[in-house]
Amino acid sequence: MAVLPLLRDEEAGAEALAVFADIREKRQTDHVNNFWRALAHDPAQLRAVWGRIQQVMAPGALDPLVKELIYVAVSVANGCDYCIHSHTAAARAKGMTPAMQAELLAVIAMAAQTNALATALQVPVDDRFKA
Amino acid sequence: MAVLPLLRDEEAGAEALAVFADIREKRQTDHVNNFWRALAHDPAQLRAVWGRIQQVMAPGALDPLVKELIYVAVSVANGCDYCIHSHTAAARAKGMTPAMQAELLAVIAMAAQTNALATALQVPVDDRFKA
Amino acid sequence: MAVLPLLRDEEAGAEALAVFADIREKRQTDHVNNFWRALAHDPAQLRAVWGRIQQVMAPGALDPLVKELIYVAVSVANGCDYCIHSHTAAARAKGMTPAMQAELLAVIAMAAQTNALATALQVPVDDRFKA
Amino acid sequence: MAVLPLLRDEEAGAEALAVFADIREKRQTDHVNNFWRALAHDPAQLRAVWGRIQQVMAPGALDPLVKELIYVAVSVANGCDYCIHSHTAAARAKGMTPAMQAELLAVIAMAAQTNALATALQVPVDDRFKA
Amino acid sequence: MAVLPLLRDEEAGAEALAVFADIREKRQTDHVNNFWRALAHDPAQLRAVWGRIQQVMAPGALDPLVKELIYVAVSVANGCDYCIHSHTAAARAKGMTPAMQAELLAVIAMAAQTNALATALQVPVDDRFKA
Amino acid sequence: MAVLPLLRDEEAGAEALAVFADIREKRQTDHVNNFWRALAHDPAQLRAVWGRIQQVMAPGALDPLVKELIYVAVSVANGCDYCIHSHTAAARAKGMTPAMQAELLAVIAMAAQTNALATALQVPVDDRFKA
Repeated sequence: MAVLPLLRDEEAGAEALAVFADIREKRQTDHVNNFWRALAHDPAQLRAVWGRIQQVMAPGALDPLVKELIYVAVSVANGCDYCIHSHTAAARAKGMTPAMQAELLAVIAMAAQTNALATALQVPVDDRFKA
Repeated sequence: MAVLPLLRDEEAGAEALAVFADIREKRQTDHVNNFWRALAHDPAQLRAVWGRIQQVMAPGALDPLVKELIYVAVSVANGCDYCIHSHTAAARAKGMTPAMQAELLAVIAMAAQTNALATALQVPVDDRFKA
Repeated sequence: MAVLPLLRDEEAGAEALAVFADIREKRQTDHVNNFWRALAHDPAQLRAVWGRIQQVMAPGALDPLVKELIYVAVSVANGCDYCIHSHTAAARAKGMTPAMQAELLAVIAMAAQTNALATALQVPVDDRFKA
Repeated sequence: MAVLPLLRDEEAGAEALAVFADIREKRQTDHVNNFWRALAHDPAQLRAVWGRIQQVMAPGALDPLVKELIYVAVSVANGCDYCIHSHTAAARAKGMTPAMQAELLAVIAMAAQTNALATALQVPVDDRFKA
Repeated sequence: MAVLPLLRDEEAGAEALAVFADIREKRQTDHVNNFWRALAHDPAQLRAVWGRIQQVMAPGALDPLVKELIYVAVSVANGCDYCIHSHTAAARAKGMTPAMQAELLAVIAMAAQTNALATALQVPVDDRFKA
Repeated sequence: MAVLPLLRDEEAGAEALAVFADIREKRQTDHVNNFWRALAHDPAQLRAVWGRIQQVMAPGALDPLVKELIYVAVSVANGCDYCIHSHTAAARAKGMTPAMQAELLAVIAMAAQTNALATALQVPVDDRFKA
């Protein structure tokens, strides 16, 4: 289905394999998922995305689970099937309970609904909401 | 700019005024923001949205600030200018610090980027990500 | 605000003016709205869009008001502020009552909400819904 | 494919089963479609969505078929594959003829095209279109 | 999966067959792809789309390969799986190399990311960018 | 309008100022546009975006003007008003003629239209388009 074949380890170049090795080490798993295997056709892009995602998703003012919930929410709104699946799995791995998932979905649905209403009505922004 | 005029208190019907009163009481403020004043042309819709949003955004398995961050993220992905402003303000009121906001933006930007890549590449979902 | 200046009559070329004349005649008004004045930089595109929109929006199996309601709904989902304003005005001119508008908004909001839920849950299509 | 398993009757809780029973009765069919079975993991959300959709889609100032056409249009613009299938089927069940469907598609395509043009050109809203 | 069956040659009407013949002649292939076979239920729409796409994609101030790259980019941003596949194939047929494809993806990803940031921050347009 | 104030030079920290200096030098202008001034609240994000955009937009297998056209197309499809203005200006600065702009718009509009049709019809991907 992919527009480019997923690169198996034996098909990937040295630069991509180095990123695969880093993914395996940091994630403590032998599995390199399809997203990275598709990206591996462009090792510079693969390295840039993998490097940046580690910085962005690291613990900080927000904890990693909260970041995954936000990631899922954006992926739903953007309609990215792959990302919905992969980040829902990541959120579960980081501790998302069924109750949290239900609330995540409820907020996404609520936001989608009021986004549509505010856009349909072209509601002007209240002065107090401006910086 | 709105496609319907924002209803002032003296223009709103009894049913809408009852919702306005509830908004004022629950939020402990006299300000009823433009979204509700635009919605007030359809009191049944106003009541339904206001009623549901209180349930959805209440403390639960996720805390209210996390829910606001998710709300902002969806609103950005859906391009709803009004909602971005109003829910960014709500997130601040619930304790979002500048550091949290910076991380929220970074996650949204990261997700938007990988959503685009996964869609462009039409990456098939890994079996392990399926329910 | 436009990325290209809106062409006044005296700035438009002969081909664009011919389309403006047709718009004025068909719509029985002297007003040529901003969309057509922005498009007039490319007379071939102007002619193609104006020609096709008349065919598409003409009475047929669906009446013109229903077509305008659908047009508004798509414009909201695509977040096109200009189109929301112009087609809401067109719908009113074709007979959209406040009650119809309220129901239109309620359906748009409902659809946005269940679209988000079905996407978030990645619900597989029931066999009976397939052609 | 779903990120949560579809709940069969014997897996659903009492609250979800009560909604399933209501769906069966109102729709006069034994089939409960996948959307509701996925939503059933959160009975409160299931009940809220099912309750509201009945109000919104009931006959009113707009007839139920027109509402389904609007629902399809929003679902297309939001790229919700499940919803396109299910609401296209619902529209057919409510009387959408092939000629109506062709016109629905033509309006959706026309709107998508002019939405893109108005956004690309950043056309300012005509004063006469403002409320 | 399609909501309407794909029309085989023997099922298509005379008007649709005439368009199929033109597609075969212009593209120098016997293959009529699924998009046209689905559109063939509405021969007027089929003819309009096929006619316009030839004008739009013809060599002009931009060469046909550049136009295909733009087409892919829009299709990715709109999340149209079919179009991503078909126009990626078309771009390859017109000379897109793997290096070009990698750069196309990098620009799409970059734009998606900064689009999200500018929207999240609600950055006002610099005066110098206005027409 | 921004949800965060645009940082003037005298308000920006040392890390942000270093990026501003690099922007001024690389672009040979004293003007630092609003996007960077809004991003400057998070110097790490500012540096990451500015660094990556220079790599992505540099001459390569695609020339910089083609990359700008693609950037505009994605920004239109994502409805980012700021980005449409800024990248349309950038495309002009890199040599986009009025004729090129007209063709760019025509391709964007064509793609938006066929994206909507293929999605509405849920057209299955032809085997020959799969990798």
